[in-house]
Amino acid sequence: MSRHQPKISKYKLGHYQLCCRFLLLRPLLYTDRLNPDIQTWIDQLRSGDVRALARAISTVENRAPEWSELLKALFPHSGKARVLGLTGPPGAGKSTLVDQLARFYRRGNDKDKRTVGIIAVDPTSPYTGGAILGDRIRMQEHFSDPGIYIRSMATRGSLGGLARTTADVTTVLDASGRDLIMIETVGVGQDEVDIVRLADVTILILVPGMGDDVQTIKAGIMEIADIFVINKSDRDGADHVEREIRTLQSLAMRHDGWTPPIVKIVASQGVGIEELAGAIADYEAHLQQENLALRKSVENWQERLVEMLRDAMLEKARMQLGDGNLARLAAEVAEHKRDPYTLVEEIAANAGKP
Amino acid sequence: MSRHQPKISKYKLGHYQLCCRFLLLRPLLYTDRLNPDIQTWIDQLRSGDVRALARAISTVENRAPEWSELLKALFPHSGKARVLGLTGPPGAGKSTLVDQLARFYRRGNDKDKRTVGIIAVDPTSPYTGGAILGDRIRMQEHFSDPGIYIRSMATRGSLGGLARTTADVTTVLDASGRDLIMIETVGVGQDEVDIVRLADVTILILVPGMGDDVQTIKAGIMEIADIFVINKSDRDGADHVEREIRTLQSLAMRHDGWTPPIVKIVASQGVGIEELAGAIADYEAHLQQENLALRKSVENWQERLVEMLRDAMLEKARMQLGDGNLARLAAEVAEHKRDPYTLVEEIAANAGKP
Repeated sequence: MSRHQPKISKYKLGHYQLCCRFLLLRPLLYTDRLNPDIQTWIDQLRSGDVRALARAISTVENRAPEWSELLKALFPHSGKARVLGLTGPPGAGKSTLVDQLARFYRRGNDKDKRTVGIIAVDPTSPYTGGAILGDRIRMQEHFSDPGIYIRSMATRGSLGGLARTTADVTTVLDASGRDLIMIETVGVGQDEVDIVRLADVTILILVPGMGDDVQTIKAGIMEIADIFVINKSDRDGADHVEREIRTLQSLAMRHDGWTPPIVKIVASQGVGIEELAGAIADYEAHLQQENLALRKSVENWQERLVEMLRDAMLEKARMQLGDGNLARLAAEVAEHKRDPYTLVEEIAANAGKP
Repeated sequence: MSRHQPKISKYKLGHYQLCCRFLLLRPLLYTDRLNPDIQTWIDQLRSGDVRALARAISTVENRAPEWSELLKALFPHSGKARVLGLTGPPGAGKSTLVDQLARFYRRGNDKDKRTVGIIAVDPTSPYTGGAILGDRIRMQEHFSDPGIYIRSMATRGSLGGLARTTADVTTVLDASGRDLIMIETVGVGQDEVDIVRLADVTILILVPGMGDDVQTIKAGIMEIADIFVINKSDRDGADHVEREIRTLQSLAMRHDGWTPPIVKIVASQGVGIEELAGAIADYEAHLQQENLALRKSVENWQERLVEMLRDAMLEKARMQLGDGNLARLAAEVAEHKRDPYTLVEEIAANAGKP
C-alpha cells in the first residue's frame, strides 16, 4: 500500500525523535507510563484490525473511560492522512458522491490507490441516532473491501461539540493508517463550517434549483470551499448556479493564490468523478507547493485548542457547581429571582479556588 | 397596547419585590450601582425608543463595552414576551412566513394585536455579514409600522456562539416591551436546534420535494417542533411530506400530551396564516394550562447557564494563556511536537491558580 506525500513532510524527518525527546522530558504525560492493554489495543488498531478501530472510535465518540489516554497515545501516529471535507445542503447527494469517490480511490493504480476512511456526520439528529440507518445500508455495500471503513456519527449534544468529536475520530482513523479520510456532513450551518474546517481539502456540493437561500449558503462557506461541485448538473439551472459561484468568487478573493474550480457532476451516474479527483489532486499539489497544509493545520489547531480548553474549563466549573445546584439556579433564573449574567461571573470567579 | 398572559404569571406577582430584595442583599451586583448613562439608555429603550433599542442590540451582539452591565440591568424587565422560533431548510420560505405572521398580529383586534420583534438569524454566514441585505429589504417594507422591529444577525464566530447571542438579543427585545418575538433561522443543524430551543413555541417549516435528507432533517428537530408547517403546499408532494411527519410522530411520542398539528400554507399568497396563528394560540393555551412555559424555561436556562459558564471559564483560561502562546502551542501541535490532549489538561489544571 503506497502512501501519498505526508501532509507535514517538512517536519516528518525529525518527528519521531522530537516526540520521544518530548515524552522523556515532560511530566504529567500519560503515554510514557501507558497501560499495557491500551498499548496492545493500539498495536492491533495500527496493524489494521477493524474491530480494534471501531472500538477506539466508539470510546472516543462516547468519551468512555480511557478516551483521553487513548487519544494521547494515538496522536503521535497521526498527521499523515489526507482529509477531505464534503458538505452541502440537504438533498445535494453527498453520500452518493462520497461512495463514488471512495470507489475511485480504491480502483486507482499504485500511485493513486488509497485506503479510505469515511466519517458520515449527521448534525441534524441531536437526539435520535439518525445516522445509524444510512450507516448500515452503506456498510453492506462496501463490506467486501477492508480498504474502506465507514463510520456514521450523530450529534451527542453534551459531549463537547460535534466538530470536536469529529476531529478526534479523524485522529483515530489517521493513526490507524488510512491514507484518505472523507468527512461528509449534511447542512450549511456553523456546525458544518466547523467540521469541514478540519479538512485539508473542502468540497462544497450544490445542486440546481435550491431556492432563495442558496446565496446565503454559499456566502457562509465560500471562504473555506476549495472546490465547488455542482451535482445533478444534468438538471436545468446548473449554469445558473455556476454563474452565482463565479460572481461570489469575484467578490471574495482568496489570499493563497488558489481559485476554487467548479466541477459539474452527476454522482448517481458516476459522471465527472474522475474530473473531481483531478481537481482534488491539483489542490493537494498546491498545498504541498505552498506548504499551506501546515499553515492550515496551525490555524485549525488554534481553534481546536480553544475549543478543547473551553470544554476542560467547563468540566472544572461544573465539578465545583454540581448538577443539583445547576437545576436550582436555573429555576431561580427562570423565575427571574436571579440575574444569570452576574451569577455566571460569580461562579467563574470562584472556580478553581480551593 | 394590551399584553397577553405573561409566560410565568404564577411568579409575576412577587416578582419585582423579589428582584428588589435580591438587589439589596447581593454583593457584586452591578445594577445597584448602575451607571446613570445606562439607566437613561434603559429608560429610553423601555419607553419604545427604537434607536436606543438598536444600540442596545448592537452592544450585546458585538460584546461592546457595557454589554454585560446592560444585560444585567435589562434582565429583570424581561420574561413577559412570547417567543416563537421558526426554522426549516433553505428555500422553505421562512422569511415570507414571518412577514405574513407579523402582519397578521399587527392587524389583530385588541385581544390579538401584539407588538412584534423579529430576529432573522443567519447561521450560514460566519464571515460575511450575509444577513444585512435581507434586513434592509424587509426593513423598508415594514418601515411605516413602529410596532414591528426587525433585526438580522449573522454569526460572529468567536463571540460565544450564535445561540447565546440570539438569547441575549431576545432578552433585550423582551425587556423593551415587545409582546411577541419571532426568531427565524435558516437551516436544520445543531445551531438551529440550539436557537429555536429558546422559543416558547417552535415551528418547523417544510416544503414538498426536499430530497433524500428530509428524513434526517425532521428527525433532528422532531422532538422540539411544536407545530409543523408545510409551505408551498399547493405543490405536488405536500401530502407525502404530511404522511412522513405523521409517521415520525407515531415513532417519537411527546410527554407533554401535545400532538404537534400540521398546518398547510402558501405563505407567498397568505393562505393558511390565520389557521397557523390559531394553532399557535392553541399551543400557547396548552403552555399556560400545564404551566409548561416555566418548565421549558427552566430546562432552557440549565443549558444557557452551562453555555455562559463555559464561555466565562474560557475567557479565564485565555487570559492566563495569552494569544501569542496559543499560536506557538498550536504550531507545536500541528508539527506533532506536542500532544494537544495533555497540553489542554495542563493549562486547565493551572487556570485560576495565582
